Amino acid sequence: MLERYGHGGDLRSAAELYGRKEEELLDYSSNMNPLGPPPAFQAIIEQYWQFIAAYPDPAQRDLLEAIAHRHQVEPASIIAGNGAAELIDLVVRYINPVKAAVFLPSFVEYEQAIAKAKCECVYIATEEQQQFNPTMVQLQHLIEKERPQLVMLGYPNNPTGALMPSEQLDYLLDSGIYVVVDEAFLDFHLEEERLTAISKLPRYEKLFVIRSMTKFYSMPGIRLGYMLAAAKHITALKQLQVPWSVNSLAQQLGVAALQQDSFAEQTKRWLAEENAWLSAQLRQLKLQVYPSVTNYMLARLPMECKLTSGQLQQLMGQRGILIRDAGKFRGLDASYIRLAIKERASNERLLQELKHVLAQQQVEAANEI
Amino acid sequence: MLERYGHGGDLRSAAELYGRKEEELLDYSSNMNPLGPPPAFQAIIEQYWQFIAAYPDPAQRDLLEAIAHRHQVEPASIIAGNGAAELIDLVVRYINPVKAAVFLPSFVEYEQAIAKAKCECVYIATEEQQQFNPTMVQLQHLIEKERPQLVMLGYPNNPTGALMPSEQLDYLLDSGIYVVVDEAFLDFHLEEERLTAISKLPRYEKLFVIRSMTKFYSMPGIRLGYMLAAAKHITALKQLQVPWSVNSLAQQLGVAALQQDSFAEQTKRWLAEENAWLSAQLRQLKLQVYPSVTNYMLARLPMECKLTSGQLQQLMGQRGILIRDAGKFRGLDASYIRLAIKERASNERLLQELKHVLAQQQVEAANEI
Repeated sequence: MLERYGHGGDLRSAAELYGRKEEELLDYSSNMNPLGPPPAFQAIIEQYWQFIAAYPDPAQRDLLEAIAHRHQVEPASIIAGNGAAELIDLVVRYINPVKAAVFLPSFVEYEQAIAKAKCECVYIATEEQQQFNPTMVQLQHLIEKERPQLVMLGYPNNPTGALMPSEQLDYLLDSGIYVVVDEAFLDFHLEEERLTAISKLPRYEKLFVIRSMTKFYSMPGIRLGYMLAAAKHITALKQLQVPWSVNSLAQQLGVAALQQDSFAEQTKRWLAEENAWLSAQLRQLKLQVYPSVTNYMLARLPMECKLTSGQLQQLMGQRGILIRDAGKFRGLDASYIRLAIKERASNERLLQELKHVLAQQQVEAANEI
Repeated sequence: MLERYGHGGDLRSAAELYGRKEEELLDYSSNMNPLGPPPAFQAIIEQYWQFIAAYPDPAQRDLLEAIAHRHQVEPASIIAGNGAAELIDLVVRYINPVKAAVFLPSFVEYEQAIAKAKCECVYIATEEQQQFNPTMVQLQHLIEKERPQLVMLGYPNNPTGALMPSEQLDYLLDSGIYVVVDEAFLDFHLEEERLTAISKLPRYEKLFVIRSMTKFYSMPGIRLGYMLAAAKHITALKQLQVPWSVNSLAQQLGVAALQQDSFAEQTKRWLAEENAWLSAQLRQLKLQVYPSVTNYMLARLPMECKLTSGQLQQLMGQRGILIRDAGKFRGLDASYIRLAIKERASNERLLQELKHVLAQQQVEAANEI
């Protein structure tokens, strides 16, 4: 299985599993912006040699200024991290709840951070028929009966690509518990500005909003994420954080990334078009595709398909295409896969190989009868 | 004060404090190898642009192999981290002691990690007359009366540059408590191989040895450290660690660093000579210099000097030279400074400025009488 270390995007494991070179693999198992990294990064990286012998700015001053400017908040309400992953871990340790809740399916880091903090985790299983969003009845039950101190959610959710309706998010916030809203993929959305929970921060002092720069700017190698919350929380979180957690190359690139307005615009326009196109094409292959607001989509294999998601992953991997076995997400079964959205030429190759593998197994299934 | 964020090497704060450009500052406040970074790093950094869009290897496979080869241990007994700082934090959270002990003075991260883990910290004050090493009587008292579950120590110690005698280290190890030995600066020592606690790992399953690659290879900007311990601990520590904690550039450079044999040899030979020379010169300026086995030294201002270490830091900073106010270390007073050891030309400038500042204050003191 590809997710040997719990995630997609592990090219090294893929190369070992499928007997191919890393650079030959087309990676639909992690969700990077295929238009990135922004070309401006190249010169910064090439000149980084001059900066490596100095410590990173421990206070991340330029980076926090740039993020503050982007979201029109104070730098004191922002903490940057060694990827959003560090911040997920840090915020749970900081809140230190006795009981926390996550929705199923969702990003595995939430429940792992909760487990590491030795905290009880409540799972709220969502339904396909509800676009994998919880119902208000479920939320009421959660708040009134389960009474967790913390809820963590993906906004949009991963792996479903669904966005929790604002009525539900507001219900959680109004309940007065801690809410961590992970917006790692929200920047791909054309209406990001209108949708972001960042605008709710002044009203809710138990709200934390996490952002990743890794996906939108295609820089997972160097790690960069940030979190916004009330300044008193941020001050305490910085005390808890490891010194120099954000390396100086990530700080430099983060500042540059936030100046890439046309790159951002181009990405959002490309995605809106490609999301629609790829969804339609996958539906033609009889996959059930769930509406996604971001750069990946959850899909269900055709009813008549005899392959499990793990088997399909293996067959596609042998053909040089990595897909995510979404059956590995708690709350989903082995009929689900998650696919990134890439540029048209790559998507065409994905579709071609998928078509081939699905047709092949139909022939094999027919022969077995 | 320069240590606004708790450490030396903060060029950004220094530039703000002293009204100078970062690149004009000569930094004796952090302890980088002035011969580094190794020239081989340049090409790797320049080509990193090609790798940034892929996730780091989550299992750090090439890096762990290279470290394992260097120390002749199994990769399963090694964890790499986002700088040694992450590992100091992680190991305390993993051991999760009720009571832990540190020696004074020592690196502030130990007590901070202990505090973050909400653990009681016992301080053992060492004496100048004992070269800042604890006495056997102190260690016996610690083990038999205080009974901590964990002791953390710098080997060599920071800021003193002193190496705990092996009899004392063995006493701690034989006592059966957890011992974290921080060898962040041991690789500068000509007899590193003979001295390292790594060779003791097979005998002591509660021993953890931390190494930094930041100082010896002058790469603090990108962060890299590692820790060695029994495989069962390492497996558990990896579960506790944040995913992709070590960025892919650090992984690549770490592998390259461990191939720099002649760089390492050259560094050790340079340091042995320069350490002796700089110590002698400082003593000529009437500073008391404590014997150091590594690339920094603790010194005490002359008895007749009216300046505090903080005032000297300020005056030197205005002249473009950053020194560490060692009075900020718990257990030392405002008569102590810590100086890195750099190349001859830099050291000559340090001495010249120091001489000037000390002479100036003597004149001023005389005028006041």
